[in-house]
Amino acid sequence: MRPSKRAVDEMRRVTIERGVLRHAEGSCRIRFGDTEVLCAATLEERVPPWLRGQARGWVTAEYGMLPRATHDRMRREASAGKQSGRTLEIQRLIGRSLRTVVDLEKLGERQITVDCDVIQADGGTRTASITGAWVALHDCIEWMRARSMLSASPLVDQVSAISCGIYDGAPVLDLDYDEDSTADTDANFVLTGSGGIVEIQATAERTPFDRETFDAMLELARAGCSKLFDLQKLAIS
Amino acid sequence: MRPSKRAVDEMRRVTIERGVLRHAEGSCRIRFGDTEVLCAATLEERVPPWLRGQARGWVTAEYGMLPRATHDRMRREASAGKQSGRTLEIQRLIGRSLRTVVDLEKLGERQITVDCDVIQADGGTRTASITGAWVALHDCIEWMRARSMLSASPLVDQVSAISCGIYDGAPVLDLDYDEDSTADTDANFVLTGSGGIVEIQATAERTPFDRETFDAMLELARAGCSKLFDLQKLAIS
Amino acid sequence: MRPSKRAVDEMRRVTIERGVLRHAEGSCRIRFGDTEVLCAATLEERVPPWLRGQARGWVTAEYGMLPRATHDRMRREASAGKQSGRTLEIQRLIGRSLRTVVDLEKLGERQITVDCDVIQADGGTRTASITGAWVALHDCIEWMRARSMLSASPLVDQVSAISCGIYDGAPVLDLDYDEDSTADTDANFVLTGSGGIVEIQATAERTPFDRETFDAMLELARAGCSKLFDLQKLAIS
Amino acid sequence: MRPSKRAVDEMRRVTIERGVLRHAEGSCRIRFGDTEVLCAATLEERVPPWLRGQARGWVTAEYGMLPRATHDRMRREASAGKQSGRTLEIQRLIGRSLRTVVDLEKLGERQITVDCDVIQADGGTRTASITGAWVALHDCIEWMRARSMLSASPLVDQVSAISCGIYDGAPVLDLDYDEDSTADTDANFVLTGSGGIVEIQATAERTPFDRETFDAMLELARAGCSKLFDLQKLAIS
Amino acid sequence: MRPSKRAVDEMRRVTIERGVLRHAEGSCRIRFGDTEVLCAATLEERVPPWLRGQARGWVTAEYGMLPRATHDRMRREASAGKQSGRTLEIQRLIGRSLRTVVDLEKLGERQITVDCDVIQADGGTRTASITGAWVALHDCIEWMRARSMLSASPLVDQVSAISCGIYDGAPVLDLDYDEDSTADTDANFVLTGSGGIVEIQATAERTPFDRETFDAMLELARAGCSKLFDLQKLAIS
Amino acid sequence: MRPSKRAVDEMRRVTIERGVLRHAEGSCRIRFGDTEVLCAATLEERVPPWLRGQARGWVTAEYGMLPRATHDRMRREASAGKQSGRTLEIQRLIGRSLRTVVDLEKLGERQITVDCDVIQADGGTRTASITGAWVALHDCIEWMRARSMLSASPLVDQVSAISCGIYDGAPVLDLDYDEDSTADTDANFVLTGSGGIVEIQATAERTPFDRETFDAMLELARAGCSKLFDLQKLAIS
Repeated sequence: MRPSKRAVDEMRRVTIERGVLRHAEGSCRIRFGDTEVLCAATLEERVPPWLRGQARGWVTAEYGMLPRATHDRMRREASAGKQSGRTLEIQRLIGRSLRTVVDLEKLGERQITVDCDVIQADGGTRTASITGAWVALHDCIEWMRARSMLSASPLVDQVSAISCGIYDGAPVLDLDYDEDSTADTDANFVLTGSGGIVEIQATAERTPFDRETFDAMLELARAGCSKLFDLQKLAIS
Repeated sequence: MRPSKRAVDEMRRVTIERGVLRHAEGSCRIRFGDTEVLCAATLEERVPPWLRGQARGWVTAEYGMLPRATHDRMRREASAGKQSGRTLEIQRLIGRSLRTVVDLEKLGERQITVDCDVIQADGGTRTASITGAWVALHDCIEWMRARSMLSASPLVDQVSAISCGIYDGAPVLDLDYDEDSTADTDANFVLTGSGGIVEIQATAERTPFDRETFDAMLELARAGCSKLFDLQKLAIS
Repeated sequence: MRPSKRAVDEMRRVTIERGVLRHAEGSCRIRFGDTEVLCAATLEERVPPWLRGQARGWVTAEYGMLPRATHDRMRREASAGKQSGRTLEIQRLIGRSLRTVVDLEKLGERQITVDCDVIQADGGTRTASITGAWVALHDCIEWMRARSMLSASPLVDQVSAISCGIYDGAPVLDLDYDEDSTADTDANFVLTGSGGIVEIQATAERTPFDRETFDAMLELARAGCSKLFDLQKLAIS
Repeated sequence: MRPSKRAVDEMRRVTIERGVLRHAEGSCRIRFGDTEVLCAATLEERVPPWLRGQARGWVTAEYGMLPRATHDRMRREASAGKQSGRTLEIQRLIGRSLRTVVDLEKLGERQITVDCDVIQADGGTRTASITGAWVALHDCIEWMRARSMLSASPLVDQVSAISCGIYDGAPVLDLDYDEDSTADTDANFVLTGSGGIVEIQATAERTPFDRETFDAMLELARAGCSKLFDLQKLAIS
Repeated sequence: MRPSKRAVDEMRRVTIERGVLRHAEGSCRIRFGDTEVLCAATLEERVPPWLRGQARGWVTAEYGMLPRATHDRMRREASAGKQSGRTLEIQRLIGRSLRTVVDLEKLGERQITVDCDVIQADGGTRTASITGAWVALHDCIEWMRARSMLSASPLVDQVSAISCGIYDGAPVLDLDYDEDSTADTDANFVLTGSGGIVEIQATAERTPFDRETFDAMLELARAGCSKLFDLQKLAIS
Repeated sequence: MRPSKRAVDEMRRVTIERGVLRHAEGSCRIRFGDTEVLCAATLEERVPPWLRGQARGWVTAEYGMLPRATHDRMRREASAGKQSGRTLEIQRLIGRSLRTVVDLEKLGERQITVDCDVIQADGGTRTASITGAWVALHDCIEWMRARSMLSASPLVDQVSAISCGIYDGAPVLDLDYDEDSTADTDANFVLTGSGGIVEIQATAERTPFDRETFDAMLELARAGCSKLFDLQKLAIS
């Protein structure tokens, strides 16, 4: 029995609330149990310097955590004067994941930045961020379409993410913080709506894992993302 | 007629929702119209180095804004590598205001940090932060009392804050962003429940103001804070 | 009796020495008792990026303190790698105060920066800085007029500043460092030659103050600034 | 045919030269074709603050690249004032990988830092770093054993790493820079000598990949790491 | 004829004014023509961490320049967020020069920091700083002796510095800014009262110089420093 | 007898290996005994902003040290967030030295940056860097000439550098780390092939030195650089 009393293949309750910010071109609040992330998409009519004049756009992401999102207060990164390696790693992952489902030529010379800010953390903040960021990105693109800024949608697929781990030797889906702290392995899977794999990050914390365990986690993740795709569709409908 | 159609002495609708974060010892979400601030109090059993061994505690605050809290996206301070002068100025003001209503000897050698993070900005974020921070601080102290950590409450009074401005020559209460942008003067008043003045910051943007106008703003602020004290009491009851 | 033996409405001896720097377009050394600030105005034929092409100029200020201006040596901000919140707050105040008395359209697309560097500190460095900065600014504008760079003077008024506090329950004018350390309240007033209020910053350090005390401080400040305006006029004549 | 003319399962020539630095407790120069990394292990008789008093040691890594290791000169991170997200990500990966094969209790309260500095880059610098870092770590531990500082070796296994990619639809082993630039997917595998998986990082650059392709890459990586383990053994013998 | 109309071996008028700061344990204002430096010595009853427990003291220096000390305003280093290479180089030179004439054992476990802040720059700021710093250091040590903190003076000699250059092929003494800008070579000499050489920094800006020229500059410097030693003695008498 | 058993005028064995990096336009590995520096020249078709449009080029240098180049590991400057004063001082010296032997007009509007990275340190890293940097610079210029980018060579002379010190009262050539640590004086000489002096930096660590000793060091340096010029010629032939 895992600490959360959930079955090995049971995700936490996931909710997605759209349009939660007045200023952003697209936004949502996504919750995986007690984990809560605010995702806000911003459209800008400019691209990074290295992309200028190439008739292509860019999609990027930034990630942050409120100081008291966690059990113990963490030092504010703005006050520390730099973003941690963990923060940089996560925001690069979110940006890469989103770009895989966007046709940057169709977007035109524009940049969409999706800010993912963790209001409360209970494990799985990066996977919740990716899943919610897609909804904010979708709404930003719809906002542009409503203003006839795009002839065709640059959004080619859905993308979502879920974590798996090994608890007491058994692969389990969607770790919360307590489970993550005791789990042997932390694996994050980013998948597309059409079944493709966008990113796999699987890390043994102490004990290396074997191929069978990895395969089992990948299957759990597939089933989990399938549910997330349904929830995304429901949210945007 | 002011842009918001409000009467000169009419505040926006203010709501305070307590206990919104699972980890923080005290927390609330405060809204002044479309301005929304999340306040979280953290208790730590240590004081800053310069206060060690003096049998006194410390109360401090930090302030931040999500990048898309504003109409145009602002650069994330963690990414810029430093907090702006405006941020530092505001968080110093919040901390000072809270300390005026706390008996630091009674708190003992502990520090309470109140994080005020602006989720959405529409003017008056510093005054909303002070007003909400008091509720989070109150609940943190109640949390300590419930655990018998304090023999007597170190909270000696309420504190709240409200802004005033001069619109079209007339003093008005509680400016929203549109009003603030066009107002001639920006004045912030921090007052205590027992009627004392904790801080006045009144700034002429272009045209200096006169004594009578200032006096009228102070009276508006008194009436406004009086309502805020009632709302704080309601929230903690 | 206040520590300095001065009467409650008695300012320290203030002296202003003009033209103390060879390179600056305007400069002065201002002393309030043992507080000494060097003010240097620099003219540049460019404006900040956000103001370009608007046919308006800009006036700004920077503030610094020599490491041994104070009783105990303070760490050099250049070595610490950043300016403190206090420094940023003060230089923003000086810049705002100066802009209130300048017609930025008449200045044309140019920037004047006034550097206020504290050579020795004994309380009231920000008010001395504002009062001296106005003289340096005035001389910089005269330097431009002598070179026919301006058809009409953009300087529309004088501006000066003075501090007040509450010592032993009584409002007193122009606190020195010892008085400031023991005073209950620190209030800074920035006023114009024609009697307008530019900025009020009044802060209760421990005990909130009441309306009557505040009014008394404002009156002391009016009388004090009146003398400072005379001294400025004397200095530039 | 891949650009390098190598067969899909053919690694570049790998060489490992031990003891290349006079001061380091363990060191090697590892080459994967034109990629060259200098690995240096440093022993310190102290652990990070958060680990003090727990009778356990720590193994960590740092990664850097000489400015002209690459085709175009890259800005020196020391001059830029911060390490890039990529650098932080890689050095965290190296450290994690090494810790999986070290019994930190047996190491005692000491820290081993392995510096991996890229002298020349032609793809696969992170996998070469991990593979070489293990040799430097091994020699550092032997250095300690030769001085009777350890009763038993804390090194429990070998660890090495190799990259795979998808070139023209086919999974290929050990991408060089030209191949990496044109490949659709970049996958890094960190494996142990006893066959366990320590880390998988697989990233679709543009097009998501499917399960079969991933499985094929994993098999290529297993065969590649098997050869790397032989080379490590040869190097330390 | 050199631009300043001075003879090749003619220094600018040098003045040293002692005791110019109220708080510092030793201070002076030194002028070499239009170059003006404020030197302030601070005594602290602690040494840097790496020197603790060795029964020896430390003497160090910091150097800064007010933004408008120069013809064009320079960016404030505190605002730039770091000290320039030139600043660091100069302050290291001043500290080294002072330490050569101090017996650090006799000083005891204390640190003296001499701040050299350039109020106005017209060439030769580093040599003026060294020459003035010695006076501030001397007075700081006298301050300690007056308080019976030292049994014997740790000051073993005088130290001063002067620059030379090559103007129109001829070695000249004590370059001002205009001369320095057009000179081929910039040489700084730090000498002791008893005739020893503490530091030589001679740099060809464009054309290498020969041995004879160097020797001539060294002789000019000897004569110049001889006068500076007299001026130091006069100042402290 | 000096610690290294070398005669007072005996340099360590110096070797220069050219063309050691695949990407750089010029490169070499230079060794002075156990000191090893990698020098890499990079050509860029742009000049620093302040030099634009003047039909002149620029030559500059950067210096770094691998963390374990030294006996004890040094903190990585990229991780510390800034380059030390020592690093900045050395890289400024290398750049100045190289520019003295380059005709910047003939170079055209281009910049050559020479990176000098210390792989292993045993004293004399700055002098080895200058000597090796000249070879890398030479090869970069040859690379340009081979591509007909230059009508005439902008390289007007050779430049090399060597250190001297005073050991046990006697001037000695080319100090290694152990000698440098115990020597009284550290003197670095940068000379040109045609006999000119480019830079002299002579520093008394504790005891001032006299003129005769300085002259003897200069003679030792002349003889040493003479050998280095031969080795440079041999390397590029």
